[in-house]
Amino acid sequence: MNFKEEQKKRIQKVEEILECYLPKEQGYQKTVMEAMNYSVRAGGKRLRPILMLETYRLFGGEGNEIEPFMAAMEMIHTYSLVHDDLPAMDNDSYRRGKKTTHIVYGHAMGILAGDALLNYAFQITGAAYHMLKEREVTGEIFLRQMEQILQAQGILAEKAGIYGMLGGQVVDVEATEKQSKLTEEQLQFIYRLKTGALIEGAMMIGAVMAGASKEEVAIVEQIAGKVGVAFQIQDDILDLISTAEVLGKPILSDEKNHKVTYVSLKGMVYSKEQVEQLSKEAIYLLEDLEEKQNRNNPFLRELLLWLIDREK
Amino acid sequence: MNFKEEQKKRIQKVEEILECYLPKEQGYQKTVMEAMNYSVRAGGKRLRPILMLETYRLFGGEGNEIEPFMAAMEMIHTYSLVHDDLPAMDNDSYRRGKKTTHIVYGHAMGILAGDALLNYAFQITGAAYHMLKEREVTGEIFLRQMEQILQAQGILAEKAGIYGMLGGQVVDVEATEKQSKLTEEQLQFIYRLKTGALIEGAMMIGAVMAGASKEEVAIVEQIAGKVGVAFQIQDDILDLISTAEVLGKPILSDEKNHKVTYVSLKGMVYSKEQVEQLSKEAIYLLEDLEEKQNRNNPFLRELLLWLIDREK
Repeated sequence: MNFKEEQKKRIQKVEEILECYLPKEQGYQKTVMEAMNYSVRAGGKRLRPILMLETYRLFGGEGNEIEPFMAAMEMIHTYSLVHDDLPAMDNDSYRRGKKTTHIVYGHAMGILAGDALLNYAFQITGAAYHMLKEREVTGEIFLRQMEQILQAQGILAEKAGIYGMLGGQVVDVEATEKQSKLTEEQLQFIYRLKTGALIEGAMMIGAVMAGASKEEVAIVEQIAGKVGVAFQIQDDILDLISTAEVLGKPILSDEKNHKVTYVSLKGMVYSKEQVEQLSKEAIYLLEDLEEKQNRNNPFLRELLLWLIDREK
Repeated sequence: MNFKEEQKKRIQKVEEILECYLPKEQGYQKTVMEAMNYSVRAGGKRLRPILMLETYRLFGGEGNEIEPFMAAMEMIHTYSLVHDDLPAMDNDSYRRGKKTTHIVYGHAMGILAGDALLNYAFQITGAAYHMLKEREVTGEIFLRQMEQILQAQGILAEKAGIYGMLGGQVVDVEATEKQSKLTEEQLQFIYRLKTGALIEGAMMIGAVMAGASKEEVAIVEQIAGKVGVAFQIQDDILDLISTAEVLGKPILSDEKNHKVTYVSLKGMVYSKEQVEQLSKEAIYLLEDLEEKQNRNNPFLRELLLWLIDREK
């Protein structure tokens, strides 16, 4: 398997799905739709929807009811970036080489476009229900699939909210504002929530929508949690050892912003060991899961390894 | 019926329900929960949840699955106020005599608390599903009630988002920023969305959760739409003819903020006529509905009239 090729294909597929779910730019309120679409189209690795789709496939999922959830997850990720970039938060004017949303559309519209993306994410998950209705699914299957949708919506809200990503942002913002010293426990809390929670949510929704059991979903959550934290520690490492050319963004930004990172707290050697350890544990759990249900997804395995070992 | 007494009872009931659904203030991310709860507890008429409950009762609803939706609706209303008050938007330091959320908790936390309330609103609607599971409802009834929940969630998202309240805010913000002259059509669009949409959503969810038919829900939407616009025009009128003592907020604020209002656009006489007309139409539709299903809700009727004719 040519991983890079396969990854590219997935990114393209996600972007096609996103286009289907983005709002039409029309009506008196057109500007907010433009701002939403500008933000979502700004690019990125599309990690969360890809992870969702690949986990869905791992559990034998074949339908397209997963697609509104893939789009919703990416919109939630995007809203969090739009609000993070606001002057009252990180005050960033550029992201991925493009002007941030509030720079292009103004500060008020930046707030509203973020709100709109979060709200729209929940709105489009309803499409999964309408797909069932249109296909005239009935009886037990209809019942089971409606429950899957309700459960997936619940996971989305939980992992995006105060017990998930947003909770991590809050602790991060407060620590940065107060320039407070963090303990390893607090830093892991931030990583687990701010970065890990949406990755957990993405993979869990993939599993739930494919009909995975409660136990399987719990293991998927564990895998994703480990991947999320390792991903973030690797980010800290790359900010120190990579070059701006490879990363596509300025390096040493954590140091400049006086940000506590895993590396500044625990040192480079320990941080690299942590990434290695978490990565091993995640792959071990995944292989065990694959074995038990006699089904595997080599691309997902490669993707998890890449996420953790990536050089950018 | 002593309307004021009855209204007071409902406000109390809503506040009890809200308390059940507000997040516990705990964990590293405690501050955001405090900010959420501060915002929701700041008071207000609790109109939207009361309208939801009374419409639910009008259609014979008796369960408590409506409660998470009542709390969710008030949280969405609250988040919109928290973000509206931000410096980049209306820049208000006080609301209902209390400091606004970003003044107490800081600008970044104001953004995050608003986001958190919107997200949490969708999260708690899931409680309606868990109530069904706990009561071990099964078969056809379970199926029908799950569909009601999914439909109610869809209405909530639609009426709060870019095709609802948020869409209205966008047009309002742009018109204010550009100091542009609005047409009556544009102003009605803003009122219908910014104020009307959540009132529509509230009453429609009440109807849907009580098992009302599609046709009935459509009429409820019409009633609520008329009430919403009349309510907002009455707001414009009161800003000119009331006193700060009665209103509990500064009068002539629209003039000071150079805001186009229905009165400034169409004159006082025409505005009062509009309120009268919309009010009559709404009550006529409600009475028709009550007659057809041989059930009525006198408090709801009084509430709609009060909303429109109120002096504060």
